Amino acid sequence: MYSLEEIANRIGASIVGDPSTAIERLGSIMDARPGDLTHLSSSHYREFLKDTQASAVILTQKDVEDCQVDALVVSNPMLAYAKASQMFDDRPRVPIGINDKSEIHPRATIGEDVRIGPFVVVEADAVVDNDVEIGANCHIGAACRIGEGSVLFGSVILYHNVRIGKRCRIHANSVIGADGFGITPDEEGKLNRVAQVGGVRIGDDVEIGASNTIDRGAIKDTVIEDGVKLDDQVHIGHNCVVGSHSMLCGCTGLGGSVSIGRHCVLAGGVGVAGSGPLEISDGVQIGAMTYVSRSIKEPGQYQGSPLHTPISKWRRNMMRLTELDNLAKRLNKLEKQLDEKSQSHNDS
Amino acid sequence: MYSLEEIANRIGASIVGDPSTAIERLGSIMDARPGDLTHLSSSHYREFLKDTQASAVILTQKDVEDCQVDALVVSNPMLAYAKASQMFDDRPRVPIGINDKSEIHPRATIGEDVRIGPFVVVEADAVVDNDVEIGANCHIGAACRIGEGSVLFGSVILYHNVRIGKRCRIHANSVIGADGFGITPDEEGKLNRVAQVGGVRIGDDVEIGASNTIDRGAIKDTVIEDGVKLDDQVHIGHNCVVGSHSMLCGCTGLGGSVSIGRHCVLAGGVGVAGSGPLEISDGVQIGAMTYVSRSIKEPGQYQGSPLHTPISKWRRNMMRLTELDNLAKRLNKLEKQLDEKSQSHNDS
Amino acid sequence: MYSLEEIANRIGASIVGDPSTAIERLGSIMDARPGDLTHLSSSHYREFLKDTQASAVILTQKDVEDCQVDALVVSNPMLAYAKASQMFDDRPRVPIGINDKSEIHPRATIGEDVRIGPFVVVEADAVVDNDVEIGANCHIGAACRIGEGSVLFGSVILYHNVRIGKRCRIHANSVIGADGFGITPDEEGKLNRVAQVGGVRIGDDVEIGASNTIDRGAIKDTVIEDGVKLDDQVHIGHNCVVGSHSMLCGCTGLGGSVSIGRHCVLAGGVGVAGSGPLEISDGVQIGAMTYVSRSIKEPGQYQGSPLHTPISKWRRNMMRLTELDNLAKRLNKLEKQLDEKSQSHNDS
Repeated sequence: MYSLEEIANRIGASIVGDPSTAIERLGSIMDARPGDLTHLSSSHYREFLKDTQASAVILTQKDVEDCQVDALVVSNPMLAYAKASQMFDDRPRVPIGINDKSEIHPRATIGEDVRIGPFVVVEADAVVDNDVEIGANCHIGAACRIGEGSVLFGSVILYHNVRIGKRCRIHANSVIGADGFGITPDEEGKLNRVAQVGGVRIGDDVEIGASNTIDRGAIKDTVIEDGVKLDDQVHIGHNCVVGSHSMLCGCTGLGGSVSIGRHCVLAGGVGVAGSGPLEISDGVQIGAMTYVSRSIKEPGQYQGSPLHTPISKWRRNMMRLTELDNLAKRLNKLEKQLDEKSQSHNDS
Repeated sequence: MYSLEEIANRIGASIVGDPSTAIERLGSIMDARPGDLTHLSSSHYREFLKDTQASAVILTQKDVEDCQVDALVVSNPMLAYAKASQMFDDRPRVPIGINDKSEIHPRATIGEDVRIGPFVVVEADAVVDNDVEIGANCHIGAACRIGEGSVLFGSVILYHNVRIGKRCRIHANSVIGADGFGITPDEEGKLNRVAQVGGVRIGDDVEIGASNTIDRGAIKDTVIEDGVKLDDQVHIGHNCVVGSHSMLCGCTGLGGSVSIGRHCVLAGGVGVAGSGPLEISDGVQIGAMTYVSRSIKEPGQYQGSPLHTPISKWRRNMMRLTELDNLAKRLNKLEKQLDEKSQSHNDS
Repeated sequence: MYSLEEIANRIGASIVGDPSTAIERLGSIMDARPGDLTHLSSSHYREFLKDTQASAVILTQKDVEDCQVDALVVSNPMLAYAKASQMFDDRPRVPIGINDKSEIHPRATIGEDVRIGPFVVVEADAVVDNDVEIGANCHIGAACRIGEGSVLFGSVILYHNVRIGKRCRIHANSVIGADGFGITPDEEGKLNRVAQVGGVRIGDDVEIGASNTIDRGAIKDTVIEDGVKLDDQVHIGHNCVVGSHSMLCGCTGLGGSVSIGRHCVLAGGVGVAGSGPLEISDGVQIGAMTYVSRSIKEPGQYQGSPLHTPISKWRRNMMRLTELDNLAKRLNKLEKQLDEKSQSHNDS
């Protein structure tokens, strides 16, 4: 429980109302109860403001007058709410110390105030910095490094030579540093594997969702830069670079040697893969379920995925799509015919 | 081994043939051997009925006369077979008791006849009801509840405050309750995380495949209702609701705040995600690899994914698709031209 | 560190230069330093040959004269490099022996020189052949068999009755043998599960990436043939057969009862699923993010996924696509009109 004043100080808001109002939890503007803190960050929800039962609302100056309860006034309510929300995160933590059911290699280096749960393995020459938290059943490979304050939830697997920055959070069952998919056929078409001798380097303040796979580089490292946020079930192929402060939503996959710029947004289910290396420039936003097969050099929004329709319509349209080039040629021909006609008409 | 009579009793079938026929295992109608029980549930397989080597076939009244072996007559052979098949499931179970290589918090509550494998962690205030089975390396977070008779296969991770109903089955490596993907940029484009303080609530008789990710809600719970069946590698974003008796096939993903109605079927690789909350009504069926970006209010079948063609054709058609709006405008213009011509023709 | 001669002997190359040149590591042709071995396998990189700082380059006869450093001459540089790369794979291995924090059933059979890490479970009647390596937190189900020299990285889950050939490599968090998605509704639309009593059979020299899911068969086994290579996050439904030496790239999913031929390549994010069994013939290549809903009987390249465009263009084109059948009909009508006109013109 916090007073409104404590929250205002943390997020840099000015208070309209009673600074001593007690805030017990977070709520959404439609369903909030007394004791809740909520926010108005999108005009979609403005209609709920006047009747909200929340004890306080984070909002901008222009919405203050419609607010019947206490208000915290800021310029960016969504961002302010994000900061305030951290105060209410009641996630239980692994206790400080090394659980005696874990297996720590004598050549591993473990910092201060580290939290290591049961059934964890830390291999030789790994370095676990101060204040790191490692959940149950994680595996930290040889020569890995985990920076100060980072959190690995349960069953995260780091292969050898994976380096993770400070204050990262890696959710359960993610796998970092498995072999990249380097495969080449021999004369008979039998497939041979190319050894993957690079590592993975992850910057500071990176968030990695559950069940991600981030492959090690073939020779150089696969790189995730500072501040990147990855949702669940994201796949990053070998030699990729994801630029700082980009976000990739759920189920998105990058083939090998894809570079994503800074401040990009890839929505869910996007696939980026070309026949060779492929680059997405800074500031690109790609819509959900889009296939990107070529580099994108200009910032902006892009999409490729078709819209759903009732299935009978879909069937007819998609059959036509398989003949679209012919349709276009027939259209060309008609235009030409008409043009000639009107030409001859004019001539006559 | 069961007699035909035992099976008939279990599934409510009438026997045409010898009730004492011994059934040893399940078989498919094409490959069945003596001792097998099979079924005829689809007209695609009717041609195999007269020659099947099975000892008995589950079928409808109208197929009895073409059946040369013993028959179990029912109205819905597929359903009857599903029920009979359970009698032959020989899956080895975790033995009753708590493996001494597990770590159970003293404040956890463990019911009767519970089966807990090795290297399992059960955190404080978790409740594991009677007859629950928990495979090796699972992690049950604080304050979770697992209802009577539910089964968690290996390495399932439940974050804190995940509540699971009765008779659920959760396959290996699924992660339930990881943080939802609530991310907001600051003034410089740096990405900030919104704390996710909701939980996950899963009804009774829910089946969750391997390597699913079901995120906890931002404020309220993410909800999976009774009888839902999820295939492998399904992703459910925060605040989603999946209505009772709906099924989501492999690799399907729901973005945040998606509501799926009851009795829906989402085929494989479907992506549902919009810019805001999005609702799919009851009784909707969505074809494989379809992108759904807007709410669907009418029951029925929908699809969006294009058909494959040989690649040279694909290239030409897809280049044309990037100019389809122009093609359509040119068609409009031609129609107008022709219309005017015939108009002037009629006028002259 | 190897001499050039040692490497040449291993990969069957002829040396142009000094056989005693010391090779310390692998490098890429653009960034290589002295001590590196690199290769020229694609004309895209030929421009870098003359200035490379590598100590040696694997290349074909026709590129020798442009090479300023030592050369290893072969007919297929990519394949030769793949073989040489194995010499530099410095992956740390699980030590020989059974870690005393593992749980091995007394009825399991463990071969010679087996490596089993901590927190591993091996169930009754499982057979682990000689030289097998099993990483931490793996679970080997009852009656599984793992062939000689195979490697399971961390947290791999094999359900019961999964048989794996020789020299396979299965990356972390993959799940093999979970229940296939056999679901059937009852009269009220409640979903019933069909027991999955088949197993999974995996051939020799198969590579399975991280976080794969390969479901057990409904009755017969799901089969992955010799030499198949699967990237990360691949899903294989029940009753599938993947033919020998085929490769499936990241995030690709096969629905139930799909047969893939031999020497096929499915690029990333492909989905193959039909209303019934579906067959892809030998030698088929399918482009990324393609939906395959029908059998493919001819070898060749196929694709279906649309191209990305700027979003405003996308919106207009995709709205048109939902009316493509109408556009095509209007085009038909125009052609007819024009045809009639020119007919009547000729007649007059």
